[in-house]
Amino acid sequence: MKAEIIAVGTELLIGQIVNSNAKDISLKFAELGIDVYFHTVVGDNKERLKQAIDIARSRADIIVFSGGIGPTMDDITKDVLAEYLNRTLYVDALSMEKIEALFKDRGTHMVESNIRQAHMIEGADRLTNEVGLAIGNGIIQEGTVYIVLPGPPHELNAMLNSSVEAWLREKLAEQKPLYSRILKFAGIGESLLEDKLMPLIKNQTDPTIAPYAKEGEVAIRVSTKAETQDDADEKIDLIVEQIHEIVGEHLYAQEDITIEEEVLHLLHLTETKISVAESCSGGLLASLLTRHPGTSATFNGGVVTYTNEMKTKLLNIPMAQLEGYNVPGAVSEETAISMAEQVRLLFNTDFGVSLTGVAGPTESEGKPVGLVYCAVAQKDKPTACYTLNLKGNRETIQIRAVKHALFRVWQQLRILADDELI
Amino acid sequence: MKAEIIAVGTELLIGQIVNSNAKDISLKFAELGIDVYFHTVVGDNKERLKQAIDIARSRADIIVFSGGIGPTMDDITKDVLAEYLNRTLYVDALSMEKIEALFKDRGTHMVESNIRQAHMIEGADRLTNEVGLAIGNGIIQEGTVYIVLPGPPHELNAMLNSSVEAWLREKLAEQKPLYSRILKFAGIGESLLEDKLMPLIKNQTDPTIAPYAKEGEVAIRVSTKAETQDDADEKIDLIVEQIHEIVGEHLYAQEDITIEEEVLHLLHLTETKISVAESCSGGLLASLLTRHPGTSATFNGGVVTYTNEMKTKLLNIPMAQLEGYNVPGAVSEETAISMAEQVRLLFNTDFGVSLTGVAGPTESEGKPVGLVYCAVAQKDKPTACYTLNLKGNRETIQIRAVKHALFRVWQQLRILADDELI
Repeated sequence: MKAEIIAVGTELLIGQIVNSNAKDISLKFAELGIDVYFHTVVGDNKERLKQAIDIARSRADIIVFSGGIGPTMDDITKDVLAEYLNRTLYVDALSMEKIEALFKDRGTHMVESNIRQAHMIEGADRLTNEVGLAIGNGIIQEGTVYIVLPGPPHELNAMLNSSVEAWLREKLAEQKPLYSRILKFAGIGESLLEDKLMPLIKNQTDPTIAPYAKEGEVAIRVSTKAETQDDADEKIDLIVEQIHEIVGEHLYAQEDITIEEEVLHLLHLTETKISVAESCSGGLLASLLTRHPGTSATFNGGVVTYTNEMKTKLLNIPMAQLEGYNVPGAVSEETAISMAEQVRLLFNTDFGVSLTGVAGPTESEGKPVGLVYCAVAQKDKPTACYTLNLKGNRETIQIRAVKHALFRVWQQLRILADDELI
Repeated sequence: MKAEIIAVGTELLIGQIVNSNAKDISLKFAELGIDVYFHTVVGDNKERLKQAIDIARSRADIIVFSGGIGPTMDDITKDVLAEYLNRTLYVDALSMEKIEALFKDRGTHMVESNIRQAHMIEGADRLTNEVGLAIGNGIIQEGTVYIVLPGPPHELNAMLNSSVEAWLREKLAEQKPLYSRILKFAGIGESLLEDKLMPLIKNQTDPTIAPYAKEGEVAIRVSTKAETQDDADEKIDLIVEQIHEIVGEHLYAQEDITIEEEVLHLLHLTETKISVAESCSGGLLASLLTRHPGTSATFNGGVVTYTNEMKTKLLNIPMAQLEGYNVPGAVSEETAISMAEQVRLLFNTDFGVSLTGVAGPTESEGKPVGLVYCAVAQKDKPTACYTLNLKGNRETIQIRAVKHALFRVWQQLRILADDELI
């Protein structure tokens, strides 16, 4: 277990006070057998505090915050951490009672801002503060332990030796290794996937389900702590089954591989070959397929027909279909279908895939940026064509179009592979 | 000016001592009007210290180190910083005299390790330590100020109020804005470029010349501080002229653009068109050219002929040339030339470019991984063919082959553009 201590407070950065809290926490952690690798001090600044949490999370298992949980607007630690963990704040009734009783004893009125000291982060454990008003918080999220403590040294020290030590000992005792599985999706956007899975994610605490960002790909990570890999698999399998019921038709792998790797794998498995005809994607589809070794057994090649002349010359698409008033045009279902069918014949493959559309930044043939037609021609089957309305800049539209084409090929290959297995 | 203080010492992380140095430095900096945004404490660990410097450099203009410059092997600050800045360490004669005198006074022998306290980082200014042995260092590199101070608080404080304050006030007074220019190169590897420029870089302090890492590209950054952009340009122009004399034939831009952008620019300028025939690069060349908007005016398209059949069918390359015993083969100068010439005719363009080779991971036709032939066919000119022996994994070989092909086209386009300007 590696720990990092983040002290929050501009008073530390202007040299008004020394960071004795970091020393005291380090001493207690040494006693508990936890290695402290970094101390960080950051001011009362939301963006820089978030930055510090990001860095700490990348290099520590336990992050301890000291300071910034008092009543003033400068006290931002709980607010920032709650936002960072995507959790809400609520007012803890027990702490509120204590604060109200204290003000009653003193014979003074409590001000609105004192409520902040009773704030708890949703799902956190209460870390009791017997000598002050601001309540401590302990949370574990995705394997990282977060502990929020007050800045005044006498409060912090009292808590270190009571509530914090007790909570940490309990949590560390039940600490088991974390197992994760990556699920990869295609043919569905990140936000739609999250929307569909939200009811499941919301009520799900173990295993946890979290988005897993990857350039141009959609993935989630399912994680759980367990004694063994088998125990973890059993728990994860149950959740994957539920995810499968909701968005199974988009789930192409339960490991971190790309859709093109899975397509190449299925092409090998079914002993089929593919060729591509690209217009708006300009060679990107061919390029992704050939980035992986051993492609030559399944990929015969492709054409990038960037002009109408070349669509006619190489793919026999009538110029009358491509150019003129009120004709389908280069960007049309008809052209996509012809391109897919013709490239399949030209390269003598089982699959022929085409992409034609408007990658931008300006519209074409009066058609909007992001409109893309994708066709999949297959031996002895009717050719299928899909209309996509993609968002993003030129590069994003190209990559999304290509990933969608791969998704459509994968769908057909899965049917083929299933047939062969039967 | 934003500052960060990095205290180095495991004793801080196990809670043996409090980080009073950070407080004292913060106080002095507040007095000097410098904002301190972060304190960091890191142990006596080379990797983690480097990590901390990396982070600090990304968010601060001034980085102050305290601790880790004593005589023991645990004292790594100067060693790590020197390595980080790519500078050597040397023994400062003046400091050495002082250390030797002290041991003589005491009547004891100096041990070897005491020499470490007289270490200076190459090019650093001496920050005198009147109350201790370990000498301080002040360095400015690429706009970042580095100050190395000893850990014992009485030494650090004495220096803060004397040598450090004096040095900082002087440096900040002469602070002018930093101007940079990016130079982009093609057709030459990073290490060869550095080798060739080393005599120039070594003796060059203003402007500074530094490598500028970019995925799959070779670039350097020339930087200088000046009153105005014009003053900076004048100084930078002189150095660029010298660089041009040494490696001018590879310098394709004095701004941060890719070789494909420069090729597209010159194609527009010369009103010429291009097409590509790819084997081992599998569509990557076409893909890079079409990633940029407005390509259709200059790029007619291309073919990815991944099999010998398709090389024959689409590019009329005789099967006898591709297959059999003792024939040139698919990976050969003859095939590269045929591919370039045929694709140029097929797409009716001014340039036809081809790539055929072994991207790996296994050899092909008994030819080694990394052997790539690149040909450029041009209207009314003899076709040129280049033999490349590329290093790296499959992806690296593909990108290097493509960048080299673009470099060769750029060479021809430059001649065309020059001719037109005359």
